[in-house]
Amino acid sequence: MIEKFEKLYSISVPELDEILGKPFKVLNDGFIRVIDYMGNDGAVVQAARVSYGKGTKVIIQDRGLIRYLMRHKHTTPFEMCEIKLHLRIPMDAWRQWIRHRTANVNEYSTRYSIAIDATQTTLPGEWRLQSTANRQGSSGFADEVLGKEMTQDEKKLHTLARSTYNKRIDAGIAREQARKDLPLSTYTEAYWKVDLHNLLHFLRLRMEKNAQLEIRKYAEIIGNEIVQRWVPITWEAFMDFSMNSTNFSLKEMEVLKKLYRGDKKEAIKIAEESGWLRRKEGKLVKSLERFEFEEKLEKLGIEFPWNDSDVIL
Amino acid sequence: MIEKFEKLYSISVPELDEILGKPFKVLNDGFIRVIDYMGNDGAVVQAARVSYGKGTKVIIQDRGLIRYLMRHKHTTPFEMCEIKLHLRIPMDAWRQWIRHRTANVNEYSTRYSIAIDATQTTLPGEWRLQSTANRQGSSGFADEVLGKEMTQDEKKLHTLARSTYNKRIDAGIAREQARKDLPLSTYTEAYWKVDLHNLLHFLRLRMEKNAQLEIRKYAEIIGNEIVQRWVPITWEAFMDFSMNSTNFSLKEMEVLKKLYRGDKKEAIKIAEESGWLRRKEGKLVKSLERFEFEEKLEKLGIEFPWNDSDVIL
Amino acid sequence: MIEKFEKLYSISVPELDEILGKPFKVLNDGFIRVIDYMGNDGAVVQAARVSYGKGTKVIIQDRGLIRYLMRHKHTTPFEMCEIKLHLRIPMDAWRQWIRHRTANVNEYSTRYSIAIDATQTTLPGEWRLQSTANRQGSSGFADEVLGKEMTQDEKKLHTLARSTYNKRIDAGIAREQARKDLPLSTYTEAYWKVDLHNLLHFLRLRMEKNAQLEIRKYAEIIGNEIVQRWVPITWEAFMDFSMNSTNFSLKEMEVLKKLYRGDKKEAIKIAEESGWLRRKEGKLVKSLERFEFEEKLEKLGIEFPWNDSDVIL
Amino acid sequence: MIEKFEKLYSISVPELDEILGKPFKVLNDGFIRVIDYMGNDGAVVQAARVSYGKGTKVIIQDRGLIRYLMRHKHTTPFEMCEIKLHLRIPMDAWRQWIRHRTANVNEYSTRYSIAIDATQTTLPGEWRLQSTANRQGSSGFADEVLGKEMTQDEKKLHTLARSTYNKRIDAGIAREQARKDLPLSTYTEAYWKVDLHNLLHFLRLRMEKNAQLEIRKYAEIIGNEIVQRWVPITWEAFMDFSMNSTNFSLKEMEVLKKLYRGDKKEAIKIAEESGWLRRKEGKLVKSLERFEFEEKLEKLGIEFPWNDSDVIL
Repeated sequence: MIEKFEKLYSISVPELDEILGKPFKVLNDGFIRVIDYMGNDGAVVQAARVSYGKGTKVIIQDRGLIRYLMRHKHTTPFEMCEIKLHLRIPMDAWRQWIRHRTANVNEYSTRYSIAIDATQTTLPGEWRLQSTANRQGSSGFADEVLGKEMTQDEKKLHTLARSTYNKRIDAGIAREQARKDLPLSTYTEAYWKVDLHNLLHFLRLRMEKNAQLEIRKYAEIIGNEIVQRWVPITWEAFMDFSMNSTNFSLKEMEVLKKLYRGDKKEAIKIAEESGWLRRKEGKLVKSLERFEFEEKLEKLGIEFPWNDSDVIL
Repeated sequence: MIEKFEKLYSISVPELDEILGKPFKVLNDGFIRVIDYMGNDGAVVQAARVSYGKGTKVIIQDRGLIRYLMRHKHTTPFEMCEIKLHLRIPMDAWRQWIRHRTANVNEYSTRYSIAIDATQTTLPGEWRLQSTANRQGSSGFADEVLGKEMTQDEKKLHTLARSTYNKRIDAGIAREQARKDLPLSTYTEAYWKVDLHNLLHFLRLRMEKNAQLEIRKYAEIIGNEIVQRWVPITWEAFMDFSMNSTNFSLKEMEVLKKLYRGDKKEAIKIAEESGWLRRKEGKLVKSLERFEFEEKLEKLGIEFPWNDSDVIL
Repeated sequence: MIEKFEKLYSISVPELDEILGKPFKVLNDGFIRVIDYMGNDGAVVQAARVSYGKGTKVIIQDRGLIRYLMRHKHTTPFEMCEIKLHLRIPMDAWRQWIRHRTANVNEYSTRYSIAIDATQTTLPGEWRLQSTANRQGSSGFADEVLGKEMTQDEKKLHTLARSTYNKRIDAGIAREQARKDLPLSTYTEAYWKVDLHNLLHFLRLRMEKNAQLEIRKYAEIIGNEIVQRWVPITWEAFMDFSMNSTNFSLKEMEVLKKLYRGDKKEAIKIAEESGWLRRKEGKLVKSLERFEFEEKLEKLGIEFPWNDSDVIL
Repeated sequence: MIEKFEKLYSISVPELDEILGKPFKVLNDGFIRVIDYMGNDGAVVQAARVSYGKGTKVIIQDRGLIRYLMRHKHTTPFEMCEIKLHLRIPMDAWRQWIRHRTANVNEYSTRYSIAIDATQTTLPGEWRLQSTANRQGSSGFADEVLGKEMTQDEKKLHTLARSTYNKRIDAGIAREQARKDLPLSTYTEAYWKVDLHNLLHFLRLRMEKNAQLEIRKYAEIIGNEIVQRWVPITWEAFMDFSMNSTNFSLKEMEVLKKLYRGDKKEAIKIAEESGWLRRKEGKLVKSLERFEFEEKLEKLGIEFPWNDSDVIL
């Protein structure tokens, strides 16, 4: 049986070996670097072929197989690749990062050692304004005057926080207690080891436009600089079928079908039944489901069948 | 702070309480029954509101919130519900089941106790033929004559397997070794405890039309008889946005856009660039990506822009 | 088969129902309360009996069975119980908490909502000194003068941190960015759901004397006030066989054996071979393995066979 | 900061490279071979030093650090090593194997391909008798006459099972259904990828004397032939502090303390309070807790303080 699976895949990836250990800078004082890895595109194929046995051998070539696996969410072969990264990242972003549970972690301990003396700082032009459309997002930047003030305040706070910390340490206070008032912007470091499937899941959420800017910057480097070098075929498939795909619900497909037939009236009827077109004094009431469908119609260059000139927000 | 989150949700679900402990029959001798559960649709909302704080309170009502969470794959609130099932299931189907790792399991041990004396049996009309289109599936049924023969053979094999097992046990052979040749069709029993998010993931894969019939029958009962009673709003959202949704890749969206504009030529050009329209001696070569896109076009009632009358399979 | 497993266990626990939703205070402004639970001691037994079938029924009674499971680390039946807690906890302690990955979490989001306006504060008598013996621990307290100063500094820092945060929010800075310099002492809230096996694992690490005081206070309440009420037999077994047990390595057992025979010479020989008795200028060099063994000997009231009056630290 | 952690560890392990891809035979037709690996003893140390920062650098050398981590169950640094194995194993043993959930798996699919035509067969001298002491174990072997008969029966059953399977396949029955009556002794193959911490946990349970012989043979090869070559220092620490250690409960330590003082009477008193010495008509009633303590006393060469000449089993 062994021989049947034996097809040999080169297991080192020269493109990745070139950047091994080399830090990519992120934010004002963070970085990401690859410490080690296991597997490559070939290892995904190799694992899938164990499952399929002789089944798919002749029919599908390697690239086609990887794309098939990605499209159909056959995720286990992607778990056969593993990567270990070394991060330096503000605790604030790390708090979001660590919520991804299927990974191995060793973080720098501020119980054992003095806290890293670096914080994420913000330039006057980098202060983002609260988005009104998206409760959890930001939109646009503060003007120069406000930005400058914010940056000065930030510096003052960082300085007091650090001097308070240092004073505690110098006075003999236990490190585990002295650290209690460090700002969330303080940098930490960690080894983070994860399999390719779970890494792609992480990237799908954290490279997305609604992800917070800080963590997005890390995710983009992992995706564009690291994963793309490591498993280029998997990366392309991920971009095509997962990251940049569009999902339509059952109802949305029905409306779309009517629109392709040119049957606006029927399309509107289904939308009404779905509760997307409630009106108050003649105006369309806000509906998240309708908004999101309208965004998809825009991607397809299709005009909304309903008149939404007067929407109540 | 407590008061802000305090909104009380009744935590028992009368519709589910009614069927607690009551076995639903599956296959010839299997069953599923609910042993215990925790949470309901309200618990999903309650958990989401902890995350959102006052943020979304006024704006989104409960049903809208659950649908929003489902649509955007905000999965953690669904993990706040838990269910414990008791299954009786052939080992063959259980081998697939157990691959879902995020669950708690206690299985009947044939090291400790005598193996359950029941196997999954097949009626003459239930023998399925190998699908040629789908390497892992079945399609249609064996005719009556063949079916009868298969069922007789099955019975003969089951009888010999059991008598051999019993003979070993009677002769004092260790149970852990005596069991080694039990057929995969032998029933086992297990307690299986899982959170709602992971249960829905299980159902999406196992209620799907390509899932093996045996496990699909269990999945359908869990979905339609149990989850629907337990968390009806979540179930509806799952059906709309996950189970019955259709996903389009970046390229597929581009083709769709051209087709809406009536620009067949441009649509074909994109398809060609995507490698979907390779030809050999004038005929279209088999392409899984094109086939799957064609299926989606059919759902939308859209004619293929290319002429595929002569496809090489 | 059903009947054989049917033995009914009452599934509600009156002792726990009494405190459902009732917050236990922790630290200056934190709390823990039980939101919901599933299972009890009986559910552990019930699950174990599914595994064992008729095997152990007559022989072992329920309490004995639970103690057997605990002693032999048969952990799956303990996974059949689940509990959901609501916590209010400083982010610093939460950073340690969240490292326990096998749990479900919904945390209050400071992207969606204004950060909770409360920090963990320290009374003058609560400032702990760095332990010299244990690099990650504390030992003793700062004197009154120093404590007072530390508490004043803490207050000044908290005040500046909050006013800076508020100023940002008032100026329209995005919440996701405004929060970046909150001190780690800021309270957060979360729903945390976990099975009994993983909860006990958490408690073993976090109730331990070397765990940081802050998280230990939460762990002790969960253990002594909640788990003890919920599953008293399991709790007793956990205390006996896990929390308060002592582990001896192969070499340590060999030394103990010699010591029981009164054969000091042989005991010392084994210790030497194990590298515990290296000397430098006649004095015993520091050896963690020897220190830890000596601690165990003290528990047994056994004198060290070697003369360690002159240890090099 | 980087430089501080930079200490370079060679990341390939020549001893393991030598056996890469080379199958170790197990049972009559199974094997294990290493496909790939990541990390070594140095990677454990490297990860631990990230956590500890400068903290422990000078004080503890690498071997001492690994032993410290193992002793204190600081498990995360061991998660930083990963190994990928290729197994060929009877489905019966695989059913136990797969219960270890924290691993990545790709198994040969008998839906896609024809089932492997090999079963685990038993020589006449290999039939084990049911243990009476241990409900889940075996003890001793069947005599030659019985063994021969058992082996003949086994062969007959395997032959009928395979011919029935082949007949179904030849008749066009779907592979997914044809396989339903394959004996559990049928071999399957899988890629299995796991981190070092979880692998050691697996080995602790499966190399143990009560583990079923078949899976134990696989575990022993993984431990003695693979892990020992891969991470020799970790392996030694695991053997000393985990695999071959002995755990004493609180009560057992108390009894031991009395015994070391020579105070039999007090020892018996504690044992009585612990319920170990219940008597019926003058004889000691069976007590698992006492039995297990007696086994530990034997290891220490200590005589039981109670007279158990007349035990009721």
